[in-house]
Amino acid sequence: MIETPYLLFLGDAPDALAAKVAQGIKDWRPEYAIGQLRLEGCKADMKLPDLTIAEAVEKGVKTLVIGVANRGGVISPAWKAVLIEALEAGLDLASGLHNLLRNEPDLAAKAKELGRTLHDVRIPAVQYPIANGKKRTGKRMLAVGTDCSVGKMYTALCVEKAMREKGLKATFRATGQTGILITGEGVPLDAVIADFMAGSVEYLTPDNDADHWDLIEGQGSLFHASYSGVTMALVHGGQPDALVLCHEPNRPHMRGLPDYQLPSLETLQDLALQVARIVNPDCKVVGISVNTSAMSDEEALAYCRETEARMGLPTVDPFRHGAERLADALAAL
Amino acid sequence: MIETPYLLFLGDAPDALAAKVAQGIKDWRPEYAIGQLRLEGCKADMKLPDLTIAEAVEKGVKTLVIGVANRGGVISPAWKAVLIEALEAGLDLASGLHNLLRNEPDLAAKAKELGRTLHDVRIPAVQYPIANGKKRTGKRMLAVGTDCSVGKMYTALCVEKAMREKGLKATFRATGQTGILITGEGVPLDAVIADFMAGSVEYLTPDNDADHWDLIEGQGSLFHASYSGVTMALVHGGQPDALVLCHEPNRPHMRGLPDYQLPSLETLQDLALQVARIVNPDCKVVGISVNTSAMSDEEALAYCRETEARMGLPTVDPFRHGAERLADALAAL
Repeated sequence: MIETPYLLFLGDAPDALAAKVAQGIKDWRPEYAIGQLRLEGCKADMKLPDLTIAEAVEKGVKTLVIGVANRGGVISPAWKAVLIEALEAGLDLASGLHNLLRNEPDLAAKAKELGRTLHDVRIPAVQYPIANGKKRTGKRMLAVGTDCSVGKMYTALCVEKAMREKGLKATFRATGQTGILITGEGVPLDAVIADFMAGSVEYLTPDNDADHWDLIEGQGSLFHASYSGVTMALVHGGQPDALVLCHEPNRPHMRGLPDYQLPSLETLQDLALQVARIVNPDCKVVGISVNTSAMSDEEALAYCRETEARMGLPTVDPFRHGAERLADALAAL
Repeated sequence: MIETPYLLFLGDAPDALAAKVAQGIKDWRPEYAIGQLRLEGCKADMKLPDLTIAEAVEKGVKTLVIGVANRGGVISPAWKAVLIEALEAGLDLASGLHNLLRNEPDLAAKAKELGRTLHDVRIPAVQYPIANGKKRTGKRMLAVGTDCSVGKMYTALCVEKAMREKGLKATFRATGQTGILITGEGVPLDAVIADFMAGSVEYLTPDNDADHWDLIEGQGSLFHASYSGVTMALVHGGQPDALVLCHEPNRPHMRGLPDYQLPSLETLQDLALQVARIVNPDCKVVGISVNTSAMSDEEALAYCRETEARMGLPTVDPFRHGAERLADALAAL
């Protein structure tokens, strides 16, 4: 668990996209995002107060989060100076970078000397159990996609926001690096050892109040040849009561797999329900989330309307239109 | 890749079952099994020549394989003396034990000093790629089960034997520790990092002759809540042309999951084909393998006959009845 609140380190981000982790924190956990720290040449801006390390400490910040993808996979000397300063000022560091903070000898030594924590969320910090498949109390929703990167994390976060606004009990459960940095906890599922995948999802979504919803971030796709095993473990470890189908129209092929077409929403629904019902016979598909970011407002509405008529399920782009209808569908279960 | 031939170390095995790795090597790769080494009190016997380390070296042995499960998870001092002697005599060591050879300081130091290899097959020795889903040349069969531990490894090994006896090109592809020790190579799939599972199976079953069959050892079950993700990755990484359904009748519940019933063979067939056809639209179920070890000869034959009539597929216990009919079904594809 990463201590909050955060100072968002944007480094020398070449553009806004490079700082998407910071943007995610700002969008979804604004109460954690006390300020930003930018180096010379930074082209990203979260519209947060620019704080020095000392000012951040003054405002109660506990952790500096690296909110930017680094160039070339190397933690540059310019970054290092800031990270060392943060450790010396009493902050922990959190990062989802491929190259780990703990593998930088100077950072590791400084953290050890001062008793600070280096959170490398790309790799598990816990020895997860083997899944036991036992029925748990509370409700769980899982976002499943026709492909990878179709908006499953945003869907779960939007539903969490909509449910909380209605006064319902709901918790987003992160299964990827960005989600973990946003919420401060979760399971980096793609880095878990095969035998423990489903167990890690059980660990992430334990017994809860009968009217509480875990909103589980999806990973991969049952139809994606590279990552389907990860998705399968999510379905069987998550024991979802409800599935939301996620889709991005107009993709030419499965992400990274030019020889593979996306399945239809009908095909996804059929397979996902079969698989989910192995662990939860009452599982239902409650709605459809469309990533319409490449569409005009009119196109987006028309696509959702047509899909809703065809599938007979509430269909929205939750980021564009809000997730109230998905939240209502869950509450009605 | 483990160098052959082997000396099979049976240690102080309390019974025959504890030496099942050695039995597997003796049964399936008798040409690798030059001799056995037993300590005082050993209750297992492979009916192989009892050899000292020196005699084994004399006969050309390259690797001492720990063919026995150790008691209490500890490598005892009595074992250590033999293992050190083997290293000093020029042998490598291979083990599928949970506690790793490399974590024993005296073994690690001795191996390093002498340039020997410690093969801990329980963990991967390779950095596997992410699966690319590209169609590969050659044919592949995968054994899929209604549950874990229903005889998928034996099925694939039996089919390999039957195909080779017919002069067909076939290679058993190990995906578990016992299979790796039997054949000297393979992927310890349950220990692979989630993102690389399917890629490790692609790596294991590369392009091959058009008339060559890879016979892939199955793992877990699509219906087993703890391990289904591993199975899914096997199906999608393996791109099977043919599936053999494996089943053990009369199990009271899924292995380790008292709340879960086994699926029917029909249900397994339906789901496994749907999933396999995502990566190989021509995939077919070619036969059924029944583990009849708990049945009399008559019961076994009757069960296979009834199942064959019901499913319309060749049905045998390949270990009891031979796998010729499964081999024929593959050759006819």
